[in-house]
Amino acid sequence: MRQKYLHKHFLRTRVRTEAICAPLEREDYVPQPLLDVSPPKWHLGHTTWFFETFLLSVYDKHYPAFNPEYAFLFNSYYNHEGERVPRDKRGFLSRPTVPEVFAYRKAITAAVDLLLKQKDLPEQLLDTLEIGIQHEEQHQELLVYDIQYILGSQPTKPAYGTGFSFQALPEPEWIAIPEGRYTVGYQGQGFCFDNEKRAHDVYLLDFEIASEVVRNRDYIEFIEEGGYENFRYWLAEGWDLAKAEHWKAPLYWEKRNGDWYSYQLSGFQKIHPDEPLRHISFFEAQAFASWKGCRLPTEFEWEAAAAQLQKGQVWEWTNSAYLPYPGFSIAPGALGEYNGKFMSNQHVLRGSSIATAAGHSRRSYRNFFPTGSRWLFSGLRLTR
Amino acid sequence: MRQKYLHKHFLRTRVRTEAICAPLEREDYVPQPLLDVSPPKWHLGHTTWFFETFLLSVYDKHYPAFNPEYAFLFNSYYNHEGERVPRDKRGFLSRPTVPEVFAYRKAITAAVDLLLKQKDLPEQLLDTLEIGIQHEEQHQELLVYDIQYILGSQPTKPAYGTGFSFQALPEPEWIAIPEGRYTVGYQGQGFCFDNEKRAHDVYLLDFEIASEVVRNRDYIEFIEEGGYENFRYWLAEGWDLAKAEHWKAPLYWEKRNGDWYSYQLSGFQKIHPDEPLRHISFFEAQAFASWKGCRLPTEFEWEAAAAQLQKGQVWEWTNSAYLPYPGFSIAPGALGEYNGKFMSNQHVLRGSSIATAAGHSRRSYRNFFPTGSRWLFSGLRLTR
Amino acid sequence: MRQKYLHKHFLRTRVRTEAICAPLEREDYVPQPLLDVSPPKWHLGHTTWFFETFLLSVYDKHYPAFNPEYAFLFNSYYNHEGERVPRDKRGFLSRPTVPEVFAYRKAITAAVDLLLKQKDLPEQLLDTLEIGIQHEEQHQELLVYDIQYILGSQPTKPAYGTGFSFQALPEPEWIAIPEGRYTVGYQGQGFCFDNEKRAHDVYLLDFEIASEVVRNRDYIEFIEEGGYENFRYWLAEGWDLAKAEHWKAPLYWEKRNGDWYSYQLSGFQKIHPDEPLRHISFFEAQAFASWKGCRLPTEFEWEAAAAQLQKGQVWEWTNSAYLPYPGFSIAPGALGEYNGKFMSNQHVLRGSSIATAAGHSRRSYRNFFPTGSRWLFSGLRLTR
Amino acid sequence: MRQKYLHKHFLRTRVRTEAICAPLEREDYVPQPLLDVSPPKWHLGHTTWFFETFLLSVYDKHYPAFNPEYAFLFNSYYNHEGERVPRDKRGFLSRPTVPEVFAYRKAITAAVDLLLKQKDLPEQLLDTLEIGIQHEEQHQELLVYDIQYILGSQPTKPAYGTGFSFQALPEPEWIAIPEGRYTVGYQGQGFCFDNEKRAHDVYLLDFEIASEVVRNRDYIEFIEEGGYENFRYWLAEGWDLAKAEHWKAPLYWEKRNGDWYSYQLSGFQKIHPDEPLRHISFFEAQAFASWKGCRLPTEFEWEAAAAQLQKGQVWEWTNSAYLPYPGFSIAPGALGEYNGKFMSNQHVLRGSSIATAAGHSRRSYRNFFPTGSRWLFSGLRLTR
Repeated sequence: MRQKYLHKHFLRTRVRTEAICAPLEREDYVPQPLLDVSPPKWHLGHTTWFFETFLLSVYDKHYPAFNPEYAFLFNSYYNHEGERVPRDKRGFLSRPTVPEVFAYRKAITAAVDLLLKQKDLPEQLLDTLEIGIQHEEQHQELLVYDIQYILGSQPTKPAYGTGFSFQALPEPEWIAIPEGRYTVGYQGQGFCFDNEKRAHDVYLLDFEIASEVVRNRDYIEFIEEGGYENFRYWLAEGWDLAKAEHWKAPLYWEKRNGDWYSYQLSGFQKIHPDEPLRHISFFEAQAFASWKGCRLPTEFEWEAAAAQLQKGQVWEWTNSAYLPYPGFSIAPGALGEYNGKFMSNQHVLRGSSIATAAGHSRRSYRNFFPTGSRWLFSGLRLTR
Repeated sequence: MRQKYLHKHFLRTRVRTEAICAPLEREDYVPQPLLDVSPPKWHLGHTTWFFETFLLSVYDKHYPAFNPEYAFLFNSYYNHEGERVPRDKRGFLSRPTVPEVFAYRKAITAAVDLLLKQKDLPEQLLDTLEIGIQHEEQHQELLVYDIQYILGSQPTKPAYGTGFSFQALPEPEWIAIPEGRYTVGYQGQGFCFDNEKRAHDVYLLDFEIASEVVRNRDYIEFIEEGGYENFRYWLAEGWDLAKAEHWKAPLYWEKRNGDWYSYQLSGFQKIHPDEPLRHISFFEAQAFASWKGCRLPTEFEWEAAAAQLQKGQVWEWTNSAYLPYPGFSIAPGALGEYNGKFMSNQHVLRGSSIATAAGHSRRSYRNFFPTGSRWLFSGLRLTR
Repeated sequence: MRQKYLHKHFLRTRVRTEAICAPLEREDYVPQPLLDVSPPKWHLGHTTWFFETFLLSVYDKHYPAFNPEYAFLFNSYYNHEGERVPRDKRGFLSRPTVPEVFAYRKAITAAVDLLLKQKDLPEQLLDTLEIGIQHEEQHQELLVYDIQYILGSQPTKPAYGTGFSFQALPEPEWIAIPEGRYTVGYQGQGFCFDNEKRAHDVYLLDFEIASEVVRNRDYIEFIEEGGYENFRYWLAEGWDLAKAEHWKAPLYWEKRNGDWYSYQLSGFQKIHPDEPLRHISFFEAQAFASWKGCRLPTEFEWEAAAAQLQKGQVWEWTNSAYLPYPGFSIAPGALGEYNGKFMSNQHVLRGSSIATAAGHSRRSYRNFFPTGSRWLFSGLRLTR
Repeated sequence: MRQKYLHKHFLRTRVRTEAICAPLEREDYVPQPLLDVSPPKWHLGHTTWFFETFLLSVYDKHYPAFNPEYAFLFNSYYNHEGERVPRDKRGFLSRPTVPEVFAYRKAITAAVDLLLKQKDLPEQLLDTLEIGIQHEEQHQELLVYDIQYILGSQPTKPAYGTGFSFQALPEPEWIAIPEGRYTVGYQGQGFCFDNEKRAHDVYLLDFEIASEVVRNRDYIEFIEEGGYENFRYWLAEGWDLAKAEHWKAPLYWEKRNGDWYSYQLSGFQKIHPDEPLRHISFFEAQAFASWKGCRLPTEFEWEAAAAQLQKGQVWEWTNSAYLPYPGFSIAPGALGEYNGKFMSNQHVLRGSSIATAAGHSRRSYRNFFPTGSRWLFSGLRLTR
C-alpha cells in the first residue's frame, strides 16, 4: 500500500513540475540572473538526476546511465557524487537543450514507473523514492521563485500567468499561549525530514502571537514612516546589508506616481494592501517587528501555537537559527548530506506558501534560508 | 549605382548574419559566459536596431517603432540614444525570444529593402546605410567568436560545424623594409572608418618582418620551454594578468596525455601544428616575440609592409595603441560615437581573419581590442 | 562601597590596557592587516571615548569635549552617536598620533577619577561606569588578538613577549550529565550583560562532555589524516570557506621540515602538542568534532556542566547561534545598542581565555563571533 | 670629474629625501590608504635597498647585507631580485620601525659615500650610481604625492607645510607650430632613461598649443557647466570610470557653501582660481579639452613646442600611449626591468612639477601613469 501510494505520488509530482514550467518560453529555461536562482532547465534535470542516481543506479544493477555527462551537469552539492558545474555558472549552459532535458525526464520517469510496477520492492528503495519525491517538491517551490525572478529581470516584465495568487487577509487577532512545557519536532508515523527529529520538550514563557501574517498595508506604513532609514529597528548586519544593497522596500517593489507596484507572477501590478507581505529578508522581518514594538516568534513558539494560526500563503521567518535538534546526527552516505550540512548561518522559516506542494509541509516542518534571502514567498508573523 | 551596390550588399549581409547562426540551438542564443561575449540573440537584435534607429527612424518620418522596448534592449553604448541594458546583464534576457528577434530582423530588413527601392535617395542616407552594413559585418565577426565561446563553455563541448577552418602555413621568410617615409591611412575613394583618416606620413627605420604569422608549433615550443613561467619575457601588466588568470596556454587549449588539444568551432580537437596560432592576448603575443628575440610590428610598419605579407587567417596584434591619427576629430551626433570614444587602453590589430566578411578589411583597417582579450582570432607576426 | 569598588576597578582597568600595549613600537599601533583587526591606537581611543561620551558628557553638564573630532574618530558602531570612520579604513589613520592618544587617555582617566571622588554619585552613573569598565575589558582581549595579528603579519615575525602563555593539558575525561531540566542565564546579584538574561529553564537530554578542551596534538592528527581534504566532516559553508581561504591548518600554523610551527605572542615557535588548540573557526571546531564522531556542546549543555569542567585558557565554540534569551529586549538609548544588534549569524563561545581580564567572565557569560573567525584564542571541547 | 659630480649629487639626493619627510609624525610613515600609495617608510627603505642591491653588493665582494630580510621587504617589482611583499600589503608593515629604516639609510649612505671616495671607479659603477640617484629622485616625487594622500586621508586633514606651493598663471596664448619634420628623443651627452632613446624624426601637421597649462578657474567652469554629467566629452572608458568612482571634480576637491576647496599640502583651503589645475586623470584632461573644442597634444607635439612653453608646475597629460621608441630594447639584467616592462596601457606625461628634483626632468623626459591616476600633480595643456 505504501508502494502504491508513493507510485501515484511520484507520477503526480513529475507532472506538477512540468506543469509549473508550461507557461515558459524555451529561452526562459536558460538564464541565472541571481546566484540563488537556478535555470528551470537545471531544476528539471537535477530532480531527474536524483532519481537516476540514488534510485535507478542503486536498485537496478543493469541500469545504464541515460547520459554519463548529466551526472556532472545536474549534481547540485552532493560531494559524494563527484564533480559538478560550479553554481555560479549554471546560467552559461545552453546544452543540453530544453527538449533534451525533457527527453531525459521522460525516460527516467518511465524507468522509475516501470520499476515501481514490480512487486514487493524493499522498504529502503521506497524510502529513497519518498525522499526523491519530497526533494522534487522542494525544487518545485524553488522553480516558482526562480521563474518569478527570471521573468521579473526582463525589462519587459512579462506575466507568468494566474496559477499562483494570494488571498486578502483580515485584521489579525492576538492569540495567547500560556507558559509551559511543549513538545516540538515530528511525532507522527509518516515521512519527515531528519532535521525535524527527534521530538523533544521545550519550556516556553507565555507570549502572544498574531493569528495572521503581516499584510502589505502594514509594511507600507513601516516604509512610509522611514523604517528603512532608521537604524534603531535593525540588527547591525541587516542595516549594513540594506545600505549595501540599497534596499528601500521588499524585492520587486517600485513606487510610481505615489503608488506601490510590484512584479508578481501575474505581471507588474499595483500592490494589494490586504494581501500577505512577501519577498522580505529575515532582517526586514526583524526590523518591522521591532518597529511595531514586537518581535519574531522562535520556531518553537510558532510550533506550539501552530494549531491556532491562519497560515499557508507565505513562509514565516522565525528568530531561530537553523541548528540540529538534540540527538540529531548526519546519516552516512550521500543522502546524509541532505539537510545537516546546511546548519550554519541560516534562519528557520515555518508554515508553507502558495507554491508549496499539497501535503508537503507540516507543523514540524523546518524550512531554512540565509538571512538576506528575499526572492522566496517570505513574510512574517508578529509575536510579543 | 552606389545605391544599387549597397542595396545588394545590405541584403547579402543580412543573410550572412543569419547563416552564421544557422547551426545554433535556440538555447545557444541566450547565455553570456564572459563579459566580452554577447548572446547571439543580442547581436541579431542590435544590428537590426542600428538600421531601425539611424536609418528608418531618421529618413522615414512616418516610421513607427517595431517595438518601443527594443531601443532599450538593443542599444549597445550609444549614450546619445538613451538608456540601455547594462552590458553584464545581457545574458539574463530570455525575452524577446529567438523567434521574436528573427521576426524583428525580418521586418526591418523588409522595411529597409522597400526604402532602398525608392529612387534618388540622398547620399547621406546611403552613408548611413553603408555604416550600418559595415557595423553588421563587424558584429558577424564577434558573433563567430561569441558562438565559439558559448559552445566552448558547455561541458559537452559541442561542435559548431565546419564553416570556419584554418589552413596550414609554410615556414615564414624575413622581408626587409628599408628606412624611409611612408604614407599610412586610407587614401582611396571608397568606404573607410573615421579612424583610418587622415592619411599621413610616418618615418620608419629599416626593419624585417615575417612573411607569415606565427604557427601553433612555434608557440608550443614557447610553452614547453617555460614561456609562461619566466617573467623576463613579459610586460609587468601581462605577467600579473597571466598569474591572476592562471594562463598556461592560449585560450581553449588543454594538454591531455602529452598532446595539445583545443576547442575549435569544429569541436574539441588535437591542435594542428602548422595552423596559425590564435586566441592569444596582446601580452602573450609580446612575450612570445620577446622570447624569440624579436618584437611586434607597429601598425605603421605593418601597413608599410602589407603588400608583401601573407595574411587573412588571424588578426595580428601590433605594438601600437589605438589612438587618433593627426587631424582626427569625433563627428557630431550618435554615429560620431562610433570609433573615437574607444581610443584609450586598447591595441591595434591589423589584417583580417577567416571570420571577416569578404571585402570588409583593407590595408589601412584598424581593428582594436583591450590588451587582455583572447577570445578572438588573434595571432601575431614577428618583426625585428 | 559599590562606588569605591568600581573606582578602584576603573583605575586598574585603565592601567592594564596600557600595560598590554607596553611592548609595542610606536608603528605597531597603526596598521589594520585584517578587517576584524583594529589598530591598537584605535582601541586606546575608543575605550576612552566611551567614558567621555557616556559618562563625562552625560553626568557633567560643563564637561567640554577633549577634542570634538575624536567623536568621529573613535566611535565604533554606535549609530546613536553619529557618523564615524568606516571600519575598513581604521588602518589609514596616522593621526592622532600615539602620544596624542595617550594624552587623551590620561586626561579622561583623570577626569573620571576626579568625578569618582565626589560623594553619593547616582546609581545610574555607576551603572554606566561599570559598563565602561566591562567594555574596556572586552577591548583588552581584542587588543591581545589584534596585536598578535599585527606582529604576526610582519615578515620578520617579531615576538611580543612572554606575558600570555599557555599551560599543557592532561588527557580529558568524559563527564556524564544526566537528562533533565536546568536553569541557565545569570542568576546572581552582580554585573552581567543584558544578553545573559533572563535566567530560564531548558530541558537537556543526557550527554557526555570532555573535562578538558582539545589539544594541539589531537588536531594535528586530524590534519595529518586529511581532515582538511574530506568534505564529509564539514558543514557546506565551512567547506566552501576553507577552500576559498586555502585553510590547511589553524591560523598562524606553518609546517617546516615535517614539524608544525606557529606564530605565537612569544614568537614563531614549534607547536607544543599538549597546549590547548586555538585559532580555529567554528567550522574547523565542528569538522574536528565530527571527525572524532562527537559534536560541539550547545551553550546550555556547556553551562549545565560548567562547574565540572577544567577551563580558562581558550574560548570554546558552541553549536549555539547567538540569539536572544526569552524575554530579552533591547534597552532604549545608545547603550541598548551594546549587545542585541549583533544577534544574527554569529555563534556563542563559552568560557574565557588567558587574555580575559580577571573576573570578567562567568558561568553564564556569552561571548560571540562570526563562524569564520580565527584570530582569537578559540578552541573547542568535545561532547557526545 | 663625473665621479665627483655624482658623489655630490648622491649625497644631496639622500638629504633631500629625508628633508621631504621631515614634517611627518612617526605614524605618518606607516599607512597605505590607496593601492598606488606607498608608505613613506617603504620609499625610504626601497631607495636605499636599490643602492645596496645594485651597487654595494655588486661592486664590493665583501659587502655583507645590512639585514637579509630587507631584500624581501623593500623590493618593489624587480622579479630578478626575488620575492617581495605584495604591493597591497605595504601598509601592514609596522616593522622595521621608522628609526630602524633611518638607521638603514644612514648605513648605506655612509657605505656608498666611502666607496665613492675610492679613486678611478669603473664607469659601469658610476652608471649604476647615476640610475640609483635618478631612481631616488623619482621616488622623491612619489613621496610628495603619497604624503599628500596620507595626510589628506586623515579626518583632521592636517597640513604638511609650506614647502611645495604653486604660482598663479596668466592667460595663455596660442603658439603656432608649423607642419614639418621634427627630431624627438634624447640627443644630448648626459644621463637619460632608456625610454627616451633613440632620437628619431617624426612628421607633424601644423598645430597650436597653449603657452600655459590650464588653470583651476577654467576647470571650475567645466564642472559648473556639467562637464561631469555629459558623456559626449568623454572617452567611453573614462565615462565608465568617472561614474564608478563618483568623480564630480578633481581629487581632493570639495564644494562647501558654494565655494570650491581642496586639500593641499598647505592644508584644506579655498582653491586659488589662477593656480594650475592638478589632480586630474588623463580622462578628465581629455574630457576638458574636448569640452573646450580642443584636444591634448601628443608627446611629440609637446616636445617640438617645448622651448616655447611656460612649464614646470604640473606634469601634463599627453594623448600618447607609453610605448617604445624605434630601436628600443630592454637591457639584460635587473636594471633592464626599469622602464620597458611598463609599456602597456599607460599614458605619457611631459614637463615636470613643483615636486620634481631640480635637473631631473628635461625636454625629452617621458613620465607615465595609468590613465585613471589622479593623486599626482597632473594637469593639461590645450592644443588645437
